[in-house]
Amino acid sequence: MDVLAEATRLKSEGKNVISMAVGQPAHPAPGVARAAAARALEAGKLGYTDALGLKSLRQAIATRYRRQYGIDLDPRRIAVTTGSSAAFNLAFLQLFNPGDLVVITRPGYPAYRNILSALGLRVVEIAVGADTGHALTPAAIEAAEREAGARVAGVLIASPANPTGAVHSRQAIADLDAWCAESGVAFISDEIYHGLTWSGEETTALSVSDNAVVINSFSKYFCMTGWRIGWMVLPEDLVRPVECLAQSLYISPPELSQIAAEAALDGIAEMDAVRAGYQTNRALLARRLPELALPFAAPMDGAFYAWVDVSGHSNDSMAFARQMLADIHVAATPGRDFDPVDGARFMRFSYAGSHADMTTALDRIEHWLGKR
Amino acid sequence: MDVLAEATRLKSEGKNVISMAVGQPAHPAPGVARAAAARALEAGKLGYTDALGLKSLRQAIATRYRRQYGIDLDPRRIAVTTGSSAAFNLAFLQLFNPGDLVVITRPGYPAYRNILSALGLRVVEIAVGADTGHALTPAAIEAAEREAGARVAGVLIASPANPTGAVHSRQAIADLDAWCAESGVAFISDEIYHGLTWSGEETTALSVSDNAVVINSFSKYFCMTGWRIGWMVLPEDLVRPVECLAQSLYISPPELSQIAAEAALDGIAEMDAVRAGYQTNRALLARRLPELALPFAAPMDGAFYAWVDVSGHSNDSMAFARQMLADIHVAATPGRDFDPVDGARFMRFSYAGSHADMTTALDRIEHWLGKR
Repeated sequence: MDVLAEATRLKSEGKNVISMAVGQPAHPAPGVARAAAARALEAGKLGYTDALGLKSLRQAIATRYRRQYGIDLDPRRIAVTTGSSAAFNLAFLQLFNPGDLVVITRPGYPAYRNILSALGLRVVEIAVGADTGHALTPAAIEAAEREAGARVAGVLIASPANPTGAVHSRQAIADLDAWCAESGVAFISDEIYHGLTWSGEETTALSVSDNAVVINSFSKYFCMTGWRIGWMVLPEDLVRPVECLAQSLYISPPELSQIAAEAALDGIAEMDAVRAGYQTNRALLARRLPELALPFAAPMDGAFYAWVDVSGHSNDSMAFARQMLADIHVAATPGRDFDPVDGARFMRFSYAGSHADMTTALDRIEHWLGKR
Repeated sequence: MDVLAEATRLKSEGKNVISMAVGQPAHPAPGVARAAAARALEAGKLGYTDALGLKSLRQAIATRYRRQYGIDLDPRRIAVTTGSSAAFNLAFLQLFNPGDLVVITRPGYPAYRNILSALGLRVVEIAVGADTGHALTPAAIEAAEREAGARVAGVLIASPANPTGAVHSRQAIADLDAWCAESGVAFISDEIYHGLTWSGEETTALSVSDNAVVINSFSKYFCMTGWRIGWMVLPEDLVRPVECLAQSLYISPPELSQIAAEAALDGIAEMDAVRAGYQTNRALLARRLPELALPFAAPMDGAFYAWVDVSGHSNDSMAFARQMLADIHVAATPGRDFDPVDGARFMRFSYAGSHADMTTALDRIEHWLGKR
């Protein structure tokens, strides 16, 4: 966050900052989504919706599961949320009690750790690396339980993952789901980078069983970060309790954003073009970063992040990121936010920006590293 | 919620349901707000904002405090939130630890109780009535502490209050603020019905000290429920920790809604006309409800609610509300949601609807009660 704040400050001074730091697409929401929002604004009234969202949006999301994965889903199992942030908060509150142990991967998305801690839950971070294809395994969870001397209450994975871009295979997801079901452990699958998988198959946990709580969002593939609309797919018995919690904690997600999100589901052609742009950026980074002695620490199989080993240049990625921003106005995220243990060796570069920006950023980095 | 769900079901069947049940204005957001949103949509890109909201919106809210109350406020103390719902959640998480005792009034807004409970906090409901002008007092809190055999960690009041419409006097707020400061207790003042005070003075807790956490919203006076924008004014030392929490739990409030909210602050003339409509409705209810042997259990000094004693007709306000909805398609809220102890005697009627609807509803109730 410090790097982001400094990048914002430099921008406000008129500096030409290129951000590879923030996890949001440069592209706006699909045109059809913005047009639907404009029509709703003209019509005038917007208000609270059902706590779990507009019925038509829940139906439209169910339809997308049929088209994308061939899965028939009861729309009543879909809870529309105020971004995936709300989905995590609701899932954690519903599934766990203070003091419960919840497993996440290291490296991983820092908000998991922060929300869990804020709710009085105990975070069990399990390091994942090349040995398991950056996937979490039942064996690793059991080892962590032995080390903690306690059973875990929940397991949370993200695939594709932030910051590594790693993708869990269908088998890896099925193994975790089965282990959780046998152990009476809640299984949460964060699928917000679905639609952005470059290598390997894209598996929703819903395709292996109905036990998992699946979390997704319009923020990434549909480029709607600022609209704050996500969703959850819940096992049937959790729908009503989550509805009550959501009613109290959020009342409802923003209605205009829900209307836009429903329309966005018809914007696939536009979003697939945006997706093709990420692929071009990814190819650029895949070629040039290793040439700059910035090798990948994970495979870039999905999402729009490169998880890079900077130890050839610095033993302190935070200082490296600060210096890079100060010297050449390129912002990227130091690893510590994602990995409190080994983060000093790593940095995350987002390639969700424009191709021109990515090319310029790499030119600047090349020139900068050459002079150091 | 059951009455609301049934009202929605009847509406979907084409029944002409008049809702006096829901706490949201019939009027849309100010025209200037909708125009600003439309312009932002045309411009295209919307994204995450700072976790505490757009700088320009925080500044504009500070300016409103100067105009409305003559208070100079550092805009950095203002946290824009995803509705007041997020403000409550953030305040509770930041100020309290699981097991802490937090005082609210009975009757009161049910989400207070629900959010506090979901976070593992212990709710201390203190009955307020005509003896204190429906205000909470330090003496009542001390009595509750003696009864609980424990000290409280926080005190939350709403003025004007939902569902009673009661307004705390400046003196009552100053007394609570001083008691909380002396006792090391957090003081939260919910001011979301400010701008809708019909009798007595409208006092922000900020005018008596800088200790209070003040919560407000664009939902009520500015008719922007569905946009989900509220705010908090924080003591300086809480700004940074709340920013970190908000970043993890919400990332940011929806940007389009923030842009609209900032513009809404220039829509005062339009909103004052809407406000005048509530006053007309209020006068109608003040005259006709007592004629129907539905006397007021609280003074209707603010907000857009009448808190009504239905015990002349029924000893079960839930059954009364269900029957009224079934027979004449008028929805109002049974008291139990607001008062788990004595709620069976009371109902809340919202007069935020159109004057025509309010008149029709009262005609239907009169005819219905005449036939019973």
